[in-house]
Amino acid sequence: MSILSDNFVNLSDFYEKQILDLIKLSEKFKQGYQVYLKEPVYVANLFFENSTRTHTSFYMAESRLGLKIVDINTSTSSVKKGESLSDTVKTLQALGTSIEVIRHKTTGWYSSIIKDSNVKTSIVNAGDGAGQHPSQSLLDLMTIYEEFGTFKGLNVGIIGDLSHSRVAKSDAQILHKLGANLYFSGPREWYDSEFDLYGKYDSFDNIIDKLDITMLLRVQLERLNEDSVNQFKANEYHERFGLNTNRMNRMKPSSIIMHPAPVNRGVEIDSSLVECSQSRIFKQMENGVFARMAILANILKNKKLLFEEITYE
Amino acid sequence: MSILSDNFVNLSDFYEKQILDLIKLSEKFKQGYQVYLKEPVYVANLFFENSTRTHTSFYMAESRLGLKIVDINTSTSSVKKGESLSDTVKTLQALGTSIEVIRHKTTGWYSSIIKDSNVKTSIVNAGDGAGQHPSQSLLDLMTIYEEFGTFKGLNVGIIGDLSHSRVAKSDAQILHKLGANLYFSGPREWYDSEFDLYGKYDSFDNIIDKLDITMLLRVQLERLNEDSVNQFKANEYHERFGLNTNRMNRMKPSSIIMHPAPVNRGVEIDSSLVECSQSRIFKQMENGVFARMAILANILKNKKLLFEEITYE
Amino acid sequence: MSILSDNFVNLSDFYEKQILDLIKLSEKFKQGYQVYLKEPVYVANLFFENSTRTHTSFYMAESRLGLKIVDINTSTSSVKKGESLSDTVKTLQALGTSIEVIRHKTTGWYSSIIKDSNVKTSIVNAGDGAGQHPSQSLLDLMTIYEEFGTFKGLNVGIIGDLSHSRVAKSDAQILHKLGANLYFSGPREWYDSEFDLYGKYDSFDNIIDKLDITMLLRVQLERLNEDSVNQFKANEYHERFGLNTNRMNRMKPSSIIMHPAPVNRGVEIDSSLVECSQSRIFKQMENGVFARMAILANILKNKKLLFEEITYE
Repeated sequence: MSILSDNFVNLSDFYEKQILDLIKLSEKFKQGYQVYLKEPVYVANLFFENSTRTHTSFYMAESRLGLKIVDINTSTSSVKKGESLSDTVKTLQALGTSIEVIRHKTTGWYSSIIKDSNVKTSIVNAGDGAGQHPSQSLLDLMTIYEEFGTFKGLNVGIIGDLSHSRVAKSDAQILHKLGANLYFSGPREWYDSEFDLYGKYDSFDNIIDKLDITMLLRVQLERLNEDSVNQFKANEYHERFGLNTNRMNRMKPSSIIMHPAPVNRGVEIDSSLVECSQSRIFKQMENGVFARMAILANILKNKKLLFEEITYE
Repeated sequence: MSILSDNFVNLSDFYEKQILDLIKLSEKFKQGYQVYLKEPVYVANLFFENSTRTHTSFYMAESRLGLKIVDINTSTSSVKKGESLSDTVKTLQALGTSIEVIRHKTTGWYSSIIKDSNVKTSIVNAGDGAGQHPSQSLLDLMTIYEEFGTFKGLNVGIIGDLSHSRVAKSDAQILHKLGANLYFSGPREWYDSEFDLYGKYDSFDNIIDKLDITMLLRVQLERLNEDSVNQFKANEYHERFGLNTNRMNRMKPSSIIMHPAPVNRGVEIDSSLVECSQSRIFKQMENGVFARMAILANILKNKKLLFEEITYE
Repeated sequence: MSILSDNFVNLSDFYEKQILDLIKLSEKFKQGYQVYLKEPVYVANLFFENSTRTHTSFYMAESRLGLKIVDINTSTSSVKKGESLSDTVKTLQALGTSIEVIRHKTTGWYSSIIKDSNVKTSIVNAGDGAGQHPSQSLLDLMTIYEEFGTFKGLNVGIIGDLSHSRVAKSDAQILHKLGANLYFSGPREWYDSEFDLYGKYDSFDNIIDKLDITMLLRVQLERLNEDSVNQFKANEYHERFGLNTNRMNRMKPSSIIMHPAPVNRGVEIDSSLVECSQSRIFKQMENGVFARMAILANILKNKKLLFEEITYE
């Protein structure tokens, strides 16, 4: 079995078997697996939205694969001169890069680019507006799989600002496809009925004791408008939707806590629980590097730039 | 024959033979030629003006030559603390860099620096204000030479915002020296009588059918003041000075289209023509990496930092 | 003898012998000494305050040691999303970095981080607010030691904006500990009585002829408030507290001039003296790379990441 696409833009494009293969490949990299490039290969990182974690995680993955990295400083780039993203991609291709890792605020920014027959370079989606964040989803899946060895029948609660979260959308869609039972919680006004397709909305207190995975979402204060920020009461949010020690005590001993980070300590989760024994928050970050190695290695394999065949077991 | 200068700041400093040598060396790098460094060599990139293309192109060239790259983020640099460019250069030299690639808004910023006897590091001009952009000129020359094998007797039209374009100035000067016939077109108010030295101003429609090279210049909206921007009518510009399909049909079949990019699609050129078979716009970008490898390799040779002698054929 | 700490945050933590060992190791690196890493090691640079010199100097030191460098662009980092510095450090650790080089405006920002038992990565202080700048102090010490072979009995004058200078504080403390005689000069309102612990305040003209080292401090105009900047008279400062040719002529022939840079030419020092034969200003920058190699190599040794034992002679 192999994953044939030269791009990685949307996890929904993949069959279940392909997703499991990517997870297994991520684990292999975590165990020290190495691949070797036939020639120098350049990858460009273009992050048009703030990101330490995702950007650095891709950077580490690229470096560990031996790729040559071109980090574009978007605040001084020609995009300021009105160049389209598509022309920027073709420029980088002309300069000699083979893979472009891009985060951009336009939902689905990649659609027209991957259809352009002059684009030969590979496109990796590191986040598209209100759309997907597929590499984050892959690392979330990897973290869950590491713990439980399966997705079927797992009770997953996703709690918080669902409507603004591209992580929530990607994760809900895929976890549902992979057989998990989904529960959603958080403020009503931050819920979006499209999630009804994948699971059930309920109060945090009603679902906490049956969850295998408590996935907390970041309150993205920077996305709220000024009025909402002023009205937002961190204490009240923490009381109603946050993971505090009371709720923690009701969790199953085998259950785990996840959060895409950065965490607002004392809002989504009590500060003392961020690094508790059931938390996988920093492990998610650790796994992210290996998940991204798998994403990139799979593309390199398809482009015939690796010496060896990759096996996924 | 060798090119002796340790700096690369102005193509007018070079004899015709030296320019042809640099073009041939660029082509050799394009064919896969490699050079080897005797020791680790550090190069610093200091771009005080926005640039994706030129900055990344130098970065790729440096990386392909095996140089160690120090990219200075000018938005957080000490230049903000009032340090002169000359002291910044001597600082980088003290830190261990051997070549400084600099773009700065001051025309001729390099003059005092290359005369300073305490400066031992090599200076490469990646653009000086309203002055030159010599590495862009070299890649333009390389692209023309690849196509026609000569410059003598070629009809070259440079169309657009001539007065604001350092590319136009460098290119006109050198192409004239190398024996091309030059024609200029574009809005009268954007024409500058210094171009009379090198060729003839005429309307685009009068010259289009005799041109071998149609070199379009970018309308640099970011350089216009607010009044001019408001008055600027993209459609009208495109109608009078842009390359549309009508004019395209009048071009000689052997002729080529060039543009320093980024392109304003639908302004200087109809969007459908940007990647047409006669366009060399993305090829220019591709060639830019090899032209810059030649510029840097020539400096490395002069500094005796390469194992091998470079030959230019 | 070995230096056991995995962090480098404050030179006052070190015994005299340890400081001398670090100076000697810096000199060894300057003479071409090399160390070899057992495995790929990643270091992150996080500079939350403007810096060309220190940032680039660490970058060069890291590169020369063969470290893999992750440069975090703090202007686009998640710190803007309200993440604490401590969580950023633990994030980078999770992503796979082993050493974090940090400059931050909070005095003593490192205290809580190095006490956090979840932090396994090493912390290097590249400047903490009004606190210390220990790597700058080490390079200052190295430059003095190179010249005089000892610190005991040397007359050191530190002249200028003492109250805003973390360099002055670190240097005064350590030079006093190492047996130098300290004199301070500069505007009364920029003097701080804590310096009375280490030496004596006097006028520049009273001390100039007995000094072995004249250490000028940068007037940090960017730290002054608007009123002070408007009142600040560069000529007057230069006349009273600057090193001009008159004062230069009164200096001992064996004495040297130091300045942490960037220099305000014509303010702290006459422009013609910046590169005179007694000036060590650019030599300080050169030494900085080797001092930082010593700092980092010592940490790498303690983490057992080097093949060889380091000897300090």
